[in-house]
Amino acid sequence: MLYDSLVSEDILDMCSQQATKIFVGKRCDNHALPQEQINQLLVTHAQAGKCVMRLKGGDPFIFGRGGEELQTVVENGVYFESIPGITAASAAASSSSIPLTHRHCAQSVKFITAFKKTNCPNEDFSEMLDPTQTVVLYMGLNRLAGLTEGLIRAGQAGDTPFAVVSHASLPTQQVLIGTLDDIAAKQLLAKLPTPALLIMGDVVNLHQQLADYNLANIEVQHRFTQQQKKAELIA
Amino acid sequence: MLYDSLVSEDILDMCSQQATKIFVGKRCDNHALPQEQINQLLVTHAQAGKCVMRLKGGDPFIFGRGGEELQTVVENGVYFESIPGITAASAAASSSSIPLTHRHCAQSVKFITAFKKTNCPNEDFSEMLDPTQTVVLYMGLNRLAGLTEGLIRAGQAGDTPFAVVSHASLPTQQVLIGTLDDIAAKQLLAKLPTPALLIMGDVVNLHQQLADYNLANIEVQHRFTQQQKKAELIA
Repeated sequence: MLYDSLVSEDILDMCSQQATKIFVGKRCDNHALPQEQINQLLVTHAQAGKCVMRLKGGDPFIFGRGGEELQTVVENGVYFESIPGITAASAAASSSSIPLTHRHCAQSVKFITAFKKTNCPNEDFSEMLDPTQTVVLYMGLNRLAGLTEGLIRAGQAGDTPFAVVSHASLPTQQVLIGTLDDIAAKQLLAKLPTPALLIMGDVVNLHQQLADYNLANIEVQHRFTQQQKKAELIA
Repeated sequence: MLYDSLVSEDILDMCSQQATKIFVGKRCDNHALPQEQINQLLVTHAQAGKCVMRLKGGDPFIFGRGGEELQTVVENGVYFESIPGITAASAAASSSSIPLTHRHCAQSVKFITAFKKTNCPNEDFSEMLDPTQTVVLYMGLNRLAGLTEGLIRAGQAGDTPFAVVSHASLPTQQVLIGTLDDIAAKQLLAKLPTPALLIMGDVVNLHQQLADYNLANIEVQHRFTQQQKKAELIA
């Protein structure tokens, strides 16, 4: 079983005791193994007759290099099964109460990375400007100031709602809400850690409306007291 | 428990025997209940002290009306918990062996609907033209000819790879591969049924390379024979 750094201990504990666990994680430029070596490891173990599992955080086919790994695998005649996952954008949306689409303010959603390839910043701001779409930027926190300045220069309104969701869906999750104009300054103070997703678009405004009622944000005891009180009031 | 038409019997069977199951599904124009009534049902049952589950196919925050339902719910003082799901695009990508992003041919992915609101066709073709992005169209099969003609008129290359994935991830899944030029004619003959997703972009070319090795496409018996033969050959 080959796993990434985004796979938690809780998930790893679900694996069979018999499985050999190999860490191949990478975070930013700090690669445990280059991608080509990961691809090759999959082939080597499969050709040795092993049942190989490649375990990733998120969805393997959305910024997960799943396509590249499978290309190497099938070029070597190895069969595979592909299990979809909940991509980070969906996890962040649910846990931060920011719907990615909404009939009244976002008729489409675009997932994009802040870096097109390793160390090559994505400067195609024009493709992020459509006001009817939500944009989710993966791996963008360390480039936040450059991204927001670039988007404003390209013509995006400075008051466009903007959110940083750090450690999405984890107990350590933090959400920072601002606008394209001020989010970089707010993050300078807040210093939210990576991994983080950036969400831009009018749907970010729904966070204020919904988040206070999201039980994931409320202590368990408090939650039940509230619901019980409500039930008693109605009864 | 309020559930949609995309929720299968297998999933419904996992629910508690004690749960009251209410079908509120809608498919195309054939609504079991108008959205406003669904929103109100959630509130009514919650305010009656019930623990209400709203069960959907896919992800509630990607073309799932989750935002609208939660807005009604919180306006009425009801607390909620939101569980993300695997959106249809991710399910279709994995089961049809079409990675949605790929370093060499798709640095972003956009999810969009063929209808912006009920009965209002999405004619904003310009926002689907970026050649470095994959476009996934939800609910577009019945508008396939209009969509492909519109995209060509707007300047998209006729040889852009195009896939129809019908009944994604189900045993009845079918995949139709073509180009923007010929996919509508192919579908006229193939008559793949809804629900279906449309995938446009160079990543569709990976289907040919990968799908033959996808065990989901191969009969179980055949799969094991192949893998055993391979293991024996290596041993």
